[in-house]
This record gives sequence, C-alpha cells and structure tokens, in this order.
Amino acid sequence: MSRLLLNCDIGESFGAWTMGLDAEVMPLIDCANIACGFHAGDPGTMRRTIGLAVRHRVSIGAHPGYPDLVGFGRRSLACSPAEVEDLMLYQIGALDGLCRAQGARVSYVKPHGALYQDMMRDPAILAAVMRAVAAYDAQLPLMLMSTRDNSAAQAIGDEHGVTLWFEAFADRAYDGNGYLVSRSLPGAVHHDPEQVVAQAITLARGESLRASDGSDLPLKAHTLCVHGDNPGSIAAVKRIREALEAQ
Amino acid sequence: MSRLLLNCDIGESFGAWTMGLDAEVMPLIDCANIACGFHAGDPGTMRRTIGLAVRHRVSIGAHPGYPDLVGFGRRSLACSPAEVEDLMLYQIGALDGLCRAQGARVSYVKPHGALYQDMMRDPAILAAVMRAVAAYDAQLPLMLMSTRDNSAAQAIGDEHGVTLWFEAFADRAYDGNGYLVSRSLPGAVHHDPEQVVAQAITLARGESLRASDGSDLPLKAHTLCVHGDNPGSIAAVKRIREALEAQ
Amino acid sequence: MSRLLLNCDIGESFGAWTMGLDAEVMPLIDCANIACGFHAGDPGTMRRTIGLAVRHRVSIGAHPGYPDLVGFGRRSLACSPAEVEDLMLYQIGALDGLCRAQGARVSYVKPHGALYQDMMRDPAILAAVMRAVAAYDAQLPLMLMSTRDNSAAQAIGDEHGVTLWFEAFADRAYDGNGYLVSRSLPGAVHHDPEQVVAQAITLARGESLRASDGSDLPLKAHTLCVHGDNPGSIAAVKRIREALEAQ
Amino acid sequence: MSRLLLNCDIGESFGAWTMGLDAEVMPLIDCANIACGFHAGDPGTMRRTIGLAVRHRVSIGAHPGYPDLVGFGRRSLACSPAEVEDLMLYQIGALDGLCRAQGARVSYVKPHGALYQDMMRDPAILAAVMRAVAAYDAQLPLMLMSTRDNSAAQAIGDEHGVTLWFEAFADRAYDGNGYLVSRSLPGAVHHDPEQVVAQAITLARGESLRASDGSDLPLKAHTLCVHGDNPGSIAAVKRIREALEAQ
Repeated sequence: MSRLLLNCDIGESFGAWTMGLDAEVMPLIDCANIACGFHAGDPGTMRRTIGLAVRHRVSIGAHPGYPDLVGFGRRSLACSPAEVEDLMLYQIGALDGLCRAQGARVSYVKPHGALYQDMMRDPAILAAVMRAVAAYDAQLPLMLMSTRDNSAAQAIGDEHGVTLWFEAFADRAYDGNGYLVSRSLPGAVHHDPEQVVAQAITLARGESLRASDGSDLPLKAHTLCVHGDNPGSIAAVKRIREALEAQ
Repeated sequence: MSRLLLNCDIGESFGAWTMGLDAEVMPLIDCANIACGFHAGDPGTMRRTIGLAVRHRVSIGAHPGYPDLVGFGRRSLACSPAEVEDLMLYQIGALDGLCRAQGARVSYVKPHGALYQDMMRDPAILAAVMRAVAAYDAQLPLMLMSTRDNSAAQAIGDEHGVTLWFEAFADRAYDGNGYLVSRSLPGAVHHDPEQVVAQAITLARGESLRASDGSDLPLKAHTLCVHGDNPGSIAAVKRIREALEAQ
Repeated sequence: MSRLLLNCDIGESFGAWTMGLDAEVMPLIDCANIACGFHAGDPGTMRRTIGLAVRHRVSIGAHPGYPDLVGFGRRSLACSPAEVEDLMLYQIGALDGLCRAQGARVSYVKPHGALYQDMMRDPAILAAVMRAVAAYDAQLPLMLMSTRDNSAAQAIGDEHGVTLWFEAFADRAYDGNGYLVSRSLPGAVHHDPEQVVAQAITLARGESLRASDGSDLPLKAHTLCVHGDNPGSIAAVKRIREALEAQ
Repeated sequence: MSRLLLNCDIGESFGAWTMGLDAEVMPLIDCANIACGFHAGDPGTMRRTIGLAVRHRVSIGAHPGYPDLVGFGRRSLACSPAEVEDLMLYQIGALDGLCRAQGARVSYVKPHGALYQDMMRDPAILAAVMRAVAAYDAQLPLMLMSTRDNSAAQAIGDEHGVTLWFEAFADRAYDGNGYLVSRSLPGAVHHDPEQVVAQAITLARGESLRASDGSDLPLKAHTLCVHGDNPGSIAAVKRIREALEAQ
C-alpha cells in the first residue's frame, strides 16, 4: 500500500480572531494547507502557522483564495484567468516569503474554497492555476480533487508540466461520477467513525469505493483531506492516522 | 566618479485607478521600487510593472508599506516590530512570487511612506526591517535615507549582515544634520532645474552639499530618489540622467 | 414632454487615486450616483462629493457595489440575497451618514456594476435590493434599467412598495428585447454626437427607438445615464442637456 | 442613587470568525457598543447583533474604530482630524442604516480601541469626534472615559453641543489622576469578584474610589464598561447587575 498523505486546511485565524485547533491537528498531518491572507490568515498568523509546521516536520502548502475575508473565500468572484494567475502568484510568494524566514519553503499548492470549486468546473481557471504554479516553481505539485475520470485535469497538468496530487475524502459519500454527494442530500456525510476509517483504508489500498448509485468507484488518491475544526474532527484524524499506520 | 543609481517609486496604480507615468520613467531609471499591494499595487498592476522593469533591464526593489490603501501608506500605523517584520516578509515574498513568473527576482528593498519614516526615527523598527530583509535573503540591500551621521543605521545593518544603500535627493534642501528641510519651510524644494542637476552632480562626485544652516554637508549616496508623477518630474529625471552620464 | 433626469456615476476616486471629472460633470446633471466605499469612494471622497452635489443642488443617490476595490465592483461576487440586503443597507446608511453632516439626504438608490447586472438578471437579487431600499426608507426610488418589458421588475417593486426609476442610455444601441447590444458587436456604441442627442430627445419625448433588429422599441425612461470620465463625455453631457432644455 | 448603565463592546465577530458571548451578555446590559465594520463586524454580523439588542430592549451605540481589521482597531493610525470625522460619520451611518431596517436607531456613540485612546489624549481628535457626533445627530451622547478632571472634555462637549456620558471601570485600579493603572503594573486589574462588585457600588453611589496613590478619587460615572468575552466575564456582569439592582 502506497502512503496516503493527510492534508488539512490550517492557519485560518485572522488577527484577533482564532479558528481551528491548529496545535492539535498539526502533529497528526503530513501536509498543511496554510491560508495566505486573502480569505484568512494575516502575516503574523502565517508566521506562527509555518513555525508550527516546521516543528512538526509537516509539508507546507500554499492555500490561496479569492480576496474575500467577509465570505471566507467561499463566494465565487468572477475573475478572469489572468486575474486568477496573478492572485495565485501573489499569495504563493507571500507565504513563501514568510517560510524563507524560518528556513522552510512552500512545497505544494492547494486553492481554497470557491477558487478550488471554480478550478474544478472551469478548465480555463484550472489552466490559469496551473500556469501560476508552473511559473512559480515547476517542481510544486498542485492538489486537486479526484473524480472517476481525472483525464481532463491530467491533460492540462501534462500540458503545463505540473505534477498533480489527487485528494479524496474519507468522510463523504461519492456519486457515480466520483463527485461528492451534495451536503443537502441524506447520507452525504459519514458520521459513523468506523465508516470513515473504512473509507480511508479502502482509498489507501487503492481499492474501489461504493458510489451512491451503487457502482464501483475507483478513485486515485495521493492524499486525504482531513479537518481540524473541533475536538470531534481531531479525534477522527487520530483514528484515520492510526488505522493507516496499522496497515 | 562612482555611478549614482536612480531609484523611483513605481507601480502605484491600484485596480481601475492609475497613478504615475510608469512607462515614461521606467526607461530612465536603474532601480524600480514596486508597490506590493498594502498601500498601492494589486497583483495585476504588480505583474505589469515587473514586465516593464524586465523589458528595460531595471532592478526590481520591493517597496512594502503599511496596510492602508485609503491613506496610501502615508499614515503611521502603530505596529510592533514583530508585526513590521511579518508584513515586510509577506510583501517582499508576494512581489518576488510575481517576479519569478517572469524570470526576475527582487534585488533590494525600500520601505514606503510612513514605514520608511518610522524606520528612520525608531531603531526598533529599523532592526525589524533589517531582520525581515536578512531573513528573506541575506544578499538583498536595504535602501534608506542618508543623513550626516549614518553610523547608527550602519551599526544595525552590520549587526544583521544587511548591505545598506543610502539614498539622497537632488531636489530637496538639507538641514545641518542631513535631514530634509520640512516642506512647510521656504526653500525646502528646489524648483530650479539647474539647481537640481547641480545637486545631483555634487552628490555623484561625493562632494559636500551646502546645508540650510550654511554648513558643509558630506552625504554618502549610492542612489538618488527621483519621481515619475507628472511630465515635469519626467523631464527632471531626463536632465539628471543626461548630466550624470556626461560626467 | 416630461423632464428626463440626467444621472451620472460620480465620487469614484479612492484615497490618493482620482477618477472622473466630478467638478465638471456635477453642474450638468440632476442625479449623482455616489460610490459608497465598497467598490470606490472612501469617507473623505464621499464627503467632498456630497459637498459638490449640495452646491449644485443635485440629488444624491447611493451607488452601492460589491466589496471589491481591486475589481471596481465589476466582478460578480456570489452573495446570498441576505448578504446583498445587508451590504446595501450598510452602504446606503454610510453615505447618508456623511450626507446628514452637510444637511443633505440620500434621495434614491442605484446599485453599481456587477451588482446592478446581477439585480437585472436574478429576481432573487432584485428582491433583496428592494427589501433593503424599502427597509431603509420606503420613499427612496430605486434606479434600474429599462427594457422592452419591465413588468417583472415592476411587479417586484409593487410587492415591496418601492418606486422604480427606469433609466435608459442615449449612446448605446438596443436589441429587440430592449437590452443593450454587447460592446463586442459593431454599432453597440453611438460615436456620432448627433445620434446620441437624437436618441436622448426620442427618449425624452417618449417615442420609440429603433432596435438593432429593426423593430420599434418603446422604452420607458425617467432618467438618462451619462458619463463624466473624460472631456469627450463631458461635452456629450452638455450637448444632451442643451438639447433637452431646448425642447 | 442614580442608575448606572452597563455598556459592553459587542458584535465583534467578523465573517466566519466569532468572538464574544453576545447572546449571553446582551440580556444583562443596557447599552450595546456595536462594531461598525472597520475594526470588526461585517454587515451580516451587524444586522444580527442589532436584532439581538432589539429583542432585549438594549440601547444601540455606534462603536466606530480605525480601519484596521488585522489589528482589531487597537493600533493607532495617524489620521487627521478631518479623516477621523469622516470615518466616524461613515460608520455611524452604516450602523444606523442597518438599525433602520429593524425599526431601531443608533442612540449614542463610543469610539473603539486606539481611536478611543487617541480621543482621550488629543483634544484635536476629541473635537473631530464631537463634530461627527453633533453633525450626525445633535441628540446623540458621546461615551468617553471619566478621569479626576473632566473639565477639558466637558468644555469641548459644551462647545459642540454634545452630551457626554462618562464611563468608569469596576475591575480596574485608578491612579491619582483618575487614569487606569497600566496593565503592566501589579494590582492593575481586580481579580477578586467582591472587589469588583464593591467598586461598582461605590461608583453607582457617587462615592469616591481609593486611587493607587492612596488619594480619594471622586469619579463621575454615567455608565460602567463590562465585558462579554468569556464565561468568567459573563459571571462578573451578572454579579454587578444583581448588586446594582439590590441597592
């Protein structure tokens, strides 16, 4: 079984406002998606989060978003591809600037929220994201969502010379096309810890999931997205980590 | 005569708002102090300004400021030294991120407006600025204001291993301590083009200026600060450039 | 012929950045759509623009936009109707606060840019805009775009008790449904001053325009949208004003 | 004994970030100092906080601050008096706009953080604050800090026709001039609940406090500043409320 990396959004505090149990989740993950100041994170929060990642030898990923603090980057903003490219480079560079001061470096990129969603549904936005990543550093992988058919994304990645890290979810149901079942539908989120752990192990083994339409769903997964919002999610990450290491 | 570099604040447009005759002044200068998004400049403006600098083989400097768009970074904000260090690293990195995409790099740093003033009057802020510059890249020079006695700044620079580039002004009168005469006083600004050119040549030759109190003022100057705001300032830069090259 | 009011976006400077020939266009218009700080305008700019309107006895309209300075409010932001309602109330109130200090009051509302577009194409957004206007002051008219069939907008206005002021354009071609012909198509913008004046007079007389498909287009118009960006647009406003007054 | 009003900073959440136990503290206070979007609070948070105040029949005060989200308005920003006046009017109006939609109105003003401190130490800033309050609505009281000698503030208030509401603290030690003892000194903050309640009752009775230098300190107090940050501060407000009502 190849190693399934755990990635988590982190560093999402802002000024006097705190969010997330960063100190609790950091020791449990492999990849820290650190907010870069446009949707969350400020220079001081970024520095502290990088320090935490460095202490726990966790890989640092840039987690750029749309410039929308009030909406936490969850509202789509109608940017042109060139605008997306520029705001990606700005945020990756800003995080890397703070990393350098601690002897670290940005080692991958995962867009946030609405920018992530827009990248997954619009090839022009995905290509803009790829151009930014490749222009910043051709060695940086881009983390994006795995679906049943990743060939379109893979083709754009190959065109831009960008390595893709596909991510999957252990706590969400998938439809037959390998997209997440909408949270508005029953069964969209797995609340049973055993089910979450089982799905993580299935993904780690490279075996097929069972989609919501009953079909077999093979899902390429380099990394699993986990959460550090509250004690319950921290416990879930611990269970997943232990189960994967016990394999 | 050692070469006196011309530096100019540039890239100070913001979104739909334009400021400065960047295309006119860029071919005339050696060092472009590019705004980094906190007091002026947005990712698109930064990319375009970098492109202009690259085409004219002009050195790119980060020009970070306080986070104050409405005040154009001209209002002091009571930041702690740690906050100054962090906002410097963020902005230097952001500009460098956009530089990398065009095969360029930030090659020096000059703080903007109130941050520049605060750095000149408060050693704790100057040390914070130095820490940021040194931590980002120990090879980057810091541009700061030359006065009669630069020993305190030089000592802080030596302590942090930061090269200092002292800048002087050709169009401003100096007092006996080597500080600029306040604009509220008569004779503070030289309006006579010949006087401006003469002061530039005096500085380039390493000769002493005559201070407003009549004393001789030797002023170390690696670079001269010029302006690209309007047709008059562009003409002034041309005259200075020609006079220096004719030496 | 009923009086056709001239309205103009104004007060779109921001901090140190200026935009528009506000002092030139203000004496020529009836209704000043003043930016409220989210896409343009800052408190000082707003105060000065209100002062200019008061001096010229021009009606003051709130011109709220999405929170997007870099994009000048021209990029759609996926806000919920409740979010639109709240950001409208915030901006109307802010402008009115600055008006009160000069003995003036906001007397109508016209959303800006992408918010205006979104309001015209999405009835849920239009209803949210109406709720904000009615909740702030049931006497405030809402300015929106006239098309061939205004009945849907009128129904929402009636439901919320909001008076509608329909606006038309003298310098743009209309399609058969009464929408503006896209700027990407030939003939979309009238460059001939005589044609612009003629269309203004036709609208003022309540006569039908000729749409781009050749059909007759009756277009209800309480107000005409004019521009104060540059000397050419100022000249156009003068011509329109004189032509209307000569009727 | 005249009634001593309890005021509390509230509505300090921002977007996805929550701060303060607003629902717990609102039923216990008389005056809600609601953040207006510059240092905390966004239009949606403001609307919800107003709704909470309306339900509990609590007076709504505008709590404007410097435009500094990252610093939570706690860092002084070198604004001119005119800039302070404008940013006050903008924020008071914005909050009042959201109040109107719920049938409420702003009924007093209390500046926040560094703006409050700057107003207390700089008469030019205090006069600017007064001009804004008087221009918005001459009936609105301004809440400011009581010291041993309030005559200078009272003179500026009289000049501008602004009613002053002096506030005091039950949980802080005062020096001989009636200023708060710095938090860096021992004994600055009262941690003993009985001492806090005793100081509240002394203030309510109009009796003198004992200053840190041993002197008697008569302190005019219309209102007491309380906090709703955490369960401990909520418990403190309850004790103060009960003690005052038992008088």
